Amino acid sequence: MIDLKKVIAGYSPDTAEIESVRKLSDDLMSKIREYCRIHGINADPLLVGSSSRGTSLRGADIDIFIRFKRSYGIREMEKLGLEIGHYVLMEGVEKYAEHPYVSSNEFGRKVDVVPCFMIDNATERITAVDRTPLHSEYLKTHLTDQQKDEVKLLKLFMRKQGIYGSELKTNGFSGYVTELLIVNYGSFLSAITHISNLKGKLVIGEPEATGKFASPVIIIDPTDQQRNAGAAVSLTALSILKLCGKTFLREPSESYFGMEPDKKPSKNVDRGTIFYIIRLKRPEIVDDIIFPQVQKMISSITRASKEYSFNIINSEYSVEDEIQVLLELETDILPEVKLHSGPPVESDNVIPFLEKNSGNDVMRGPYVIDGRIYVELKNSMNVYDQALAKILENADLGKHINKMKGEFKIQRYKGKLPDLKVSINFLSKRNPN
Amino acid sequence: MIDLKKVIAGYSPDTAEIESVRKLSDDLMSKIREYCRIHGINADPLLVGSSSRGTSLRGADIDIFIRFKRSYGIREMEKLGLEIGHYVLMEGVEKYAEHPYVSSNEFGRKVDVVPCFMIDNATERITAVDRTPLHSEYLKTHLTDQQKDEVKLLKLFMRKQGIYGSELKTNGFSGYVTELLIVNYGSFLSAITHISNLKGKLVIGEPEATGKFASPVIIIDPTDQQRNAGAAVSLTALSILKLCGKTFLREPSESYFGMEPDKKPSKNVDRGTIFYIIRLKRPEIVDDIIFPQVQKMISSITRASKEYSFNIINSEYSVEDEIQVLLELETDILPEVKLHSGPPVESDNVIPFLEKNSGNDVMRGPYVIDGRIYVELKNSMNVYDQALAKILENADLGKHINKMKGEFKIQRYKGKLPDLKVSINFLSKRNPN
Repeated sequence: MIDLKKVIAGYSPDTAEIESVRKLSDDLMSKIREYCRIHGINADPLLVGSSSRGTSLRGADIDIFIRFKRSYGIREMEKLGLEIGHYVLMEGVEKYAEHPYVSSNEFGRKVDVVPCFMIDNATERITAVDRTPLHSEYLKTHLTDQQKDEVKLLKLFMRKQGIYGSELKTNGFSGYVTELLIVNYGSFLSAITHISNLKGKLVIGEPEATGKFASPVIIIDPTDQQRNAGAAVSLTALSILKLCGKTFLREPSESYFGMEPDKKPSKNVDRGTIFYIIRLKRPEIVDDIIFPQVQKMISSITRASKEYSFNIINSEYSVEDEIQVLLELETDILPEVKLHSGPPVESDNVIPFLEKNSGNDVMRGPYVIDGRIYVELKNSMNVYDQALAKILENADLGKHINKMKGEFKIQRYKGKLPDLKVSINFLSKRNPN
Repeated sequence: MIDLKKVIAGYSPDTAEIESVRKLSDDLMSKIREYCRIHGINADPLLVGSSSRGTSLRGADIDIFIRFKRSYGIREMEKLGLEIGHYVLMEGVEKYAEHPYVSSNEFGRKVDVVPCFMIDNATERITAVDRTPLHSEYLKTHLTDQQKDEVKLLKLFMRKQGIYGSELKTNGFSGYVTELLIVNYGSFLSAITHISNLKGKLVIGEPEATGKFASPVIIIDPTDQQRNAGAAVSLTALSILKLCGKTFLREPSESYFGMEPDKKPSKNVDRGTIFYIIRLKRPEIVDDIIFPQVQKMISSITRASKEYSFNIINSEYSVEDEIQVLLELETDILPEVKLHSGPPVESDNVIPFLEKNSGNDVMRGPYVIDGRIYVELKNSMNVYDQALAKILENADLGKHINKMKGEFKIQRYKGKLPDLKVSINFLSKRNPN
């Protein structure tokens, strides 16, 4: 029998960690209060996030919000927020969400100091983060102590399946959504039982509120009926949760829980395909900007390759110090002939088409099939490395990656994959993890 | 300027041919009458078809119908019809349409002697051919002498484009349909002007009659409002007529007219593809049975190949003493990995799918994308000659061809095509011809 209590204990902060987090956050908040008092700033610190409500796992971040009176202008609030952040986080660096904030790892875990406006009701919010303190307040009265452990189980389950986190890197379930799922379903088992039997979207909320949203997961934020807290969750992430819920309930195992997915690469054998791997140095920009750009880069290349009749059957990427993009093709040499589909014979364009396609590059035709005219032309772009060079030259790969076009390293592999991080990602793709 | 009169003259029977056809058909009909008189058969011969109405081209067939009183039973009519046929055609052989008839080439051109029932109105017909004499009668009063030449022009135009003939070999325009087009449009130029500007179906007849039919060409038979005389015409044949009408009107040339399409093969160059050619002796069956079977064979092979992920990009055939089927593939070796698409994650079948796909043939996955689960499996049928052998063994290739499975010769060609009739057909595919 699987021991869920043991699972929880294995990943929960122990008494020492809880005490140290409490002490650290108290210290930081005292310093913030003092700074505000000395400088006559009308603002108040608040510990938010999972650490503030007992739903955090080992090593979790500390999120301290500084709530400014709404009489401050946005720019002033931002400026003072950074000032205070740098004051309490000596090694802090500035990061950007909707607004800048200060983040630091100097205390052995990530600490974010984020300015916001103080509101009592989501309708009063000026910036997106103003809502966050309301979430903490809501959860304080809606989660029992037992349920806090259930939240941890659900987080661990999602983490192991690679679907935890609302960042654009993951497109998964945020901590807050996980907590709302437990508020709604009562327990981990009840939540995954429900979701694994679910057909279609995951919807929580009153119909008049949920009806406005179209994404796969619609969970109305109890502190703001206008907001879908589950907007970031992709269909794939929801589907993985459904699938893994099913398999877990069928054969429960502790292997479904963990801080992150295991990499269990399948054997690196010759698949009879061709791999192209594009490598570039990672530009110094945050995950939430670089991940969507790499994804965009892959879909641009895939689309453009298809226009040259090259079929990318799989792709994968890795973003660490280096960006690595892997493209898998059935073949990288196409026939020298290419079917060119013309207009319907009824179209006025058919005569120009015939005139245009009468030269030396016609290999056969033109001929009519059903209602349309076709011609077979010489394909001068039938070798992929030429096509890829042209694609990378012309395609829009995203603002930051476009700047690095000159620095791409492109390598072709036939047979086994090279020893690279992207290869591990490629070979490890598996659900349930 | 193009001289249409010269075109007509070039392909029309000269005075000597007309006289000889008249004499031959008169002789045959006299013999038939005499035979009927002597044997007390209540039947009357009638010359039908283009030779009977001045719309025939050089070397045209002679079609003599023997019209039996309707008091005869069908089997008796058939028996007597064959008896008379063999009496007048000493070297005649029996052929089969809806009913058997006798056909011979002993007089230097094809002569068919076909029994039917005598009717005054299509509603009385017992067999499909009973209508044919009514067609001759109708056209006698609806085509002027000038229009008979226009019919010849239209026939020559269609013949050159390979769309003349309603047999299953061609799926084109019958002689009768050609005549009805001239009755309807008045002249060759007017007919092709109209058709080349036509969008959609070619429809001639009253809406209450045409409305019942769905084929690309709907031409109500004036002798039978229930019949679509254009039912045999394929969309491709109609489209070729539209296209060639356009190009001819734009730049008229005598090269658009002739007894059959020119074979103008494009250069036999390496297309960077693979050809498989299947050859078998032609079984002794008529065109209208063997052509559909060869077409069915090709579509069966194409469909089954697709199931093995082999993409037949082109096919062609030739049916003479030998049947030759050509298949063109981009490649005949596939990757050793194959994406296998599983059920939606919501389906009850997802667990059996996971259980089934957990063995040694899993190369990667299973994994979820959007709402579905996939797995990459080892493809053990990744070489086409193996796949084709299996396909030919299992597929239904049509009654007569199925019997010859043991006698197929299969050859693979990479690069240029071999010197075979099917290669000429393949390389000659071109519209306008």
